[in-house]
Formats: sequence, structure tokens, C-alpha cells
Amino acid sequence: MREAHQNQNSAPRDAYERDGAAIYARSFAIIRAEADLRRFAPDEAQVAVRVIHACGMVELAANLRFGPGFVATTRNALRRGCPVLCDSEMVAHGVTRARLPARNEVICTLRDPRTPDLARRLGNTRSAAALELWGDRLGGAVVAIGNAPTALFHLLDMLAAGAPAPAGIIGMPVGFVGAVESKQALEAYATVPYAIVAGRQGGSAMAAGCLNALASEAE
Amino acid sequence: MREAHQNQNSAPRDAYERDGAAIYARSFAIIRAEADLRRFAPDEAQVAVRVIHACGMVELAANLRFGPGFVATTRNALRRGCPVLCDSEMVAHGVTRARLPARNEVICTLRDPRTPDLARRLGNTRSAAALELWGDRLGGAVVAIGNAPTALFHLLDMLAAGAPAPAGIIGMPVGFVGAVESKQALEAYATVPYAIVAGRQGGSAMAAGCLNALASEAE
Repeated sequence: MREAHQNQNSAPRDAYERDGAAIYARSFAIIRAEADLRRFAPDEAQVAVRVIHACGMVELAANLRFGPGFVATTRNALRRGCPVLCDSEMVAHGVTRARLPARNEVICTLRDPRTPDLARRLGNTRSAAALELWGDRLGGAVVAIGNAPTALFHLLDMLAAGAPAPAGIIGMPVGFVGAVESKQALEAYATVPYAIVAGRQGGSAMAAGCLNALASEAE
Repeated sequence: MREAHQNQNSAPRDAYERDGAAIYARSFAIIRAEADLRRFAPDEAQVAVRVIHACGMVELAANLRFGPGFVATTRNALRRGCPVLCDSEMVAHGVTRARLPARNEVICTLRDPRTPDLARRLGNTRSAAALELWGDRLGGAVVAIGNAPTALFHLLDMLAAGAPAPAGIIGMPVGFVGAVESKQALEAYATVPYAIVAGRQGGSAMAAGCLNALASEAE
């Protein structure tokens, strides 16, 4: 509390770091010093650092899991220009366009005018129904799910029904109903390379952070 | 693992909850059953539930702090039509427009073409510089900071220099450099009603969840 009260006369505020590059560098150094990244391959650790950066929790490393080949496969797909398919506007707006290697399209169909009708017809959420509008862009894409468990469940149903496989799936929906189970289902499916945050945690910032790490190796 | 493997033959997936309203209701019931909300006033608890919903962590309740009058003051301001000023596109896109009581404007100036020059001139990040473009919309607004500590620091400097006070500040920047300190500084400033997530945690989803809870009492 003493430190907090000192801030009232604005002296400590004058000292805060204002340089964006320095903030990133110091943040990533802190994460690498504090997080237990030993069970990750070097390319996975790079992704883990950015997901941790997005949520402020080094403990998250314990819940982060990668399917075999996830980082290499999705990085190659992005370099070849595949689209990024997002379940929410927040994920889409968290993708740093300047990091994308091939001016990749970033697509979210949640607000497409056809989505509400599709949702009624399917008897599912709008988040799930929106995936139907990805169409033939799904094959070879990188999918980033950071909000709705129903979107991840529905994606798995689409794949089981023969939809073309994406290059990889970022499975990081968040919440109390279906999040745990949808990520278990993605891990069990195992046919497509995946990254998940096991448990209830997840969210659009983590999903976007994961995508941003895949898009460029620059820290 | 047994449960996860059963998902491969799609039977458990068939059973997942597909009704959006039911998902919300069950989620909020779980949060109210598991989270320790006893130290909050009823209107604060309503906000806490939605912030917890955004991150999937009932433990977050312990880090959530409200200044006196925060919920009532910001709800009144929103009802009177004040703008919502956001530090990031992710926060702005997390605000559910249908919940806003007065078709309130939701503003993020981060991508304004003037922002990069302003940042160079100020010797600060673009996130901080963008606040200079809020202009006379700041007085009486609800500010939602869910990304950059530098934006929160700079807001406090603007207020100390005589900028018109907002109705309330959602101070939920995330990260390893400045997040803790900027939220301590907001708490110490204490002149404007605030909500913070103490510590490194925070983020655009929590800030947007907080705003969405203020915008409407509907769960």
C-alpha cells in the first residue's frame, strides 16, 4: 500500500516504461525466467510464451498442450497463405496483421447476416452456425477458437461428417459449460494438429496470442 | 482419458448443450455456486460474475476490486448515453451492442491514422497516445482498459494534468511490465470510480465482460 500511495504524487508514474519494444522484451524475459517450459519443444515454447503473455499467468504453461507437429504444420500453412478462421470478432481483432507472413485473410463469419437463420435451422448457437459459412476455406486453414465451446464441438462434428481438414486447430474456448469437454474432444480426435488450454481457462486473447506466435517467430 | 476417447465415436458430443440462453444460465449458476462473492455488494457481484465468466476462473473474485459507487455511477452514465472509450480493438469488439442501454458509442482510437505520429511525439506507446484523441468525449465517459498498462498510466497523467474526469474507469490491463503498478496507481488516485483486477491478470475479455455487466442487469 505504501508504494501505491506514493503514486498519488505522480513521481512513480513518471518512471513507467513507455517503449513498446522494451516492454515486450522485458515481458518475455520475465515469462522465460518464471514459467516452467521444460516439457515443450523450442517452437512450442515460443508459442507458450505468447499465450502466457496474453493472460499474465505463468502457471498457464501447465495447461497448455500441443498435438504432434502443430507448430511446424500451422507455420507452413500460414507461410503458404492459408486463411485464419476465427470463432469470434475478438479473436479476429487480436490477430496482429503485421505479423502475418502472407497477408493471410482473417475471417470471422459470426456477424454474417445468414448466421442467425442458420443457427435456428441447426438448433445450435450462432457461434457454431457461423462455421458453416467458412465453406471451402476450411481445408488447410488455421482455425482459432477462443470463445465458444459450441463452435469447437460443431467443428469436430463437421470434420467427422467429412468436411476438409484444416492445417491446425487452436482450441481455446473458455468457460463453465462445454469448454472442458470440447477441448477433451479435440484432443481425442487427434487427426488434426491442435493446441489447447486444458480446463475452463482460455479465451480470445490466448487464441489470438497463439496465432500471433505462429504467424512470426519474432519475439 | 476414458471419457475423452468415448468422444471419438461422437456419442458424448451429441449431448452437448447447444442453447445459448441455457449455456449462460448454467454458467452463471455455476459461478454463483463456486465463487466467493460475499464481500461484494449485490450490484458488484453481478459484475464479478460476468468478469469471472469471461476468464473461466472463479478464483479471480479475490483479485477484483471496486471503488465506492463504481457500479451505480457507471450504470447511470451509460443510461444517459455516455460513450464507451476502449484502449484496444479487442475490448471494443467484446462489447455486446445489444446490451447497451442508449445505443452508446463504442470508441477505440488505436488505429486512427494520427496515432503513430502522436506516439512518437509523446515518446509513449500507440496505446497511450491513442487516448489523446478521445478529446472532449472523456468527460463523463466509461473508460475500458483491457490491454495496455501504458494506456492506464497515461490516462492518470491526463487526469492529473486537468483532463475532464470520466464517470468510471475499468482498469484491467494485463501483463508483466506495468500492469500491477498501473492498477495500484488507479486505486491510489481514487478520485474516479474504478474497477480493477489486481495483479498481472486482466485482459480485453475481462474488461469487455465488466462493461457488458454494467450495460445491462440481465444475466
